[in-house]
Amino acid sequence: MTAKHRWTTRVRWSEVDPAGIVFYPRFFEWFDLATESLFESRGQPWPIIFPLYDIVGVPIAESGAKFTAPVRYGDEVSIDSVVAHVEEKTFRVEHEVKVGDIVCARGFELRAWVGRPAQPGDRLRARAIPEEIVKMLKDGVENG
Amino acid sequence: MTAKHRWTTRVRWSEVDPAGIVFYPRFFEWFDLATESLFESRGQPWPIIFPLYDIVGVPIAESGAKFTAPVRYGDEVSIDSVVAHVEEKTFRVEHEVKVGDIVCARGFELRAWVGRPAQPGDRLRARAIPEEIVKMLKDGVENG
Amino acid sequence: MTAKHRWTTRVRWSEVDPAGIVFYPRFFEWFDLATESLFESRGQPWPIIFPLYDIVGVPIAESGAKFTAPVRYGDEVSIDSVVAHVEEKTFRVEHEVKVGDIVCARGFELRAWVGRPAQPGDRLRARAIPEEIVKMLKDGVENG
Amino acid sequence: MTAKHRWTTRVRWSEVDPAGIVFYPRFFEWFDLATESLFESRGQPWPIIFPLYDIVGVPIAESGAKFTAPVRYGDEVSIDSVVAHVEEKTFRVEHEVKVGDIVCARGFELRAWVGRPAQPGDRLRARAIPEEIVKMLKDGVENG
Repeated sequence: MTAKHRWTTRVRWSEVDPAGIVFYPRFFEWFDLATESLFESRGQPWPIIFPLYDIVGVPIAESGAKFTAPVRYGDEVSIDSVVAHVEEKTFRVEHEVKVGDIVCARGFELRAWVGRPAQPGDRLRARAIPEEIVKMLKDGVENG
Repeated sequence: MTAKHRWTTRVRWSEVDPAGIVFYPRFFEWFDLATESLFESRGQPWPIIFPLYDIVGVPIAESGAKFTAPVRYGDEVSIDSVVAHVEEKTFRVEHEVKVGDIVCARGFELRAWVGRPAQPGDRLRARAIPEEIVKMLKDGVENG
Repeated sequence: MTAKHRWTTRVRWSEVDPAGIVFYPRFFEWFDLATESLFESRGQPWPIIFPLYDIVGVPIAESGAKFTAPVRYGDEVSIDSVVAHVEEKTFRVEHEVKVGDIVCARGFELRAWVGRPAQPGDRLRARAIPEEIVKMLKDGVENG
Repeated sequence: MTAKHRWTTRVRWSEVDPAGIVFYPRFFEWFDLATESLFESRGQPWPIIFPLYDIVGVPIAESGAKFTAPVRYGDEVSIDSVVAHVEEKTFRVEHEVKVGDIVCARGFELRAWVGRPAQPGDRLRARAIPEEIVKMLKDGVENG
């Protein structure tokens, strides 16, 4: 059993396009915020741990989504995220986006643990995910 | 042989994150702009054809990308797009993102031709893509 | 005495630029969200009242801000908003952005009550603000 | 006589809100791009000169705009920018946004020349603008 988390958001005016529905890249911004919130719910907030572990962050190696129902201005959106698996340097998070009981999108992110280079602009390299982060990602129980 | 197109952009300050690399949802915004530019290069600009055909647009049914090299502030980015296939109500576009000769990302979009509903907020339904648009999407020759 | 409200937000990764500080147009997005939240706190949520009153929204006629301290990724931001005055067709909201006790920015928005045109694309015209909205904007007491 | 420059852009789908007009913080993003383009037209591109002069950039101390006509999806927008004055550590740029002959907005930015701090997160301090940049900002003649 791995980490699960629910993050909720209200659809912002700026996220909706002239067609009256959420512009699809915004869903990927939500995936990012949902994953950040999962880390925070385990006592690992990104603004603290990125400098602590000297990483640039957890950039995306691969991502994708299927969109099955439109989301509109003012909708209350829930995103259920689950850590699907954890490898040495990467982990995969899967997201389900719902408005009420209607599933609007399902997506995933494959993220890498990437060290801060010696000089800005130097090549970025994935590193082994620290043991306590691996444990947190694999652990189904929230701290909060 | 189907439609191909190259769109280029300069990376904007607003597209780069605190890690010094392009925030990944911005690539999906570029896919959108690249597909729009492909339509325009065939004499079918979206601001004209969306009201003309009474559609809300060509929303995404599915999208995804692999990211293989970081893109940075000021980089000149080229996106080579190709229409991979055309169905009755949907079409698939594949994108390759490069900085110079380095492939930074590859992605795709599956888009639907969606009519404007009678009332805003009504259910959205995909319609058959008009013949001249199908022809344009399947035709390898640019107008411009 | 006029309506006052506090809205809080956490700085998002996507709002921070390569200099490590919030990109300044994001402050104007926050002003928008803070004004929306003020309306909602008085039982007048925008997603409900815009269609109800048949307006396109409350677009900006003028806006401005002074920036006195940087805001960074992960900061908890509070925005104190006050309705400074209400005219027949417009109203002015003033915002103070703080992180803890430090004032980071002060700004304002002059907004107009703009009707939905008969046809999309027709000229936009400001209308008289309805009496109950004027009352709400002038009233210092929150519903919530 | 000071530096003048024209920058043009096409309104993007992502910049337009559900009311069918450009969301007002996007104008401030355009001001940023217009000022960047002015620097580049004088042979001083930001991606080169920010690291060269060891500055975090030219952050905004104050900004504001009046909005007089809506801008819509697909519009060709021109922004005429002029350097209004140059002080020791700051400079002011004024922008006029037009679609065809119609002035849609007028705004300004007061920007500071801000050094890169010794440690990320350290206090940001404005520095004297280098002589060659002052000269460029005051010089009415484009390189290009």
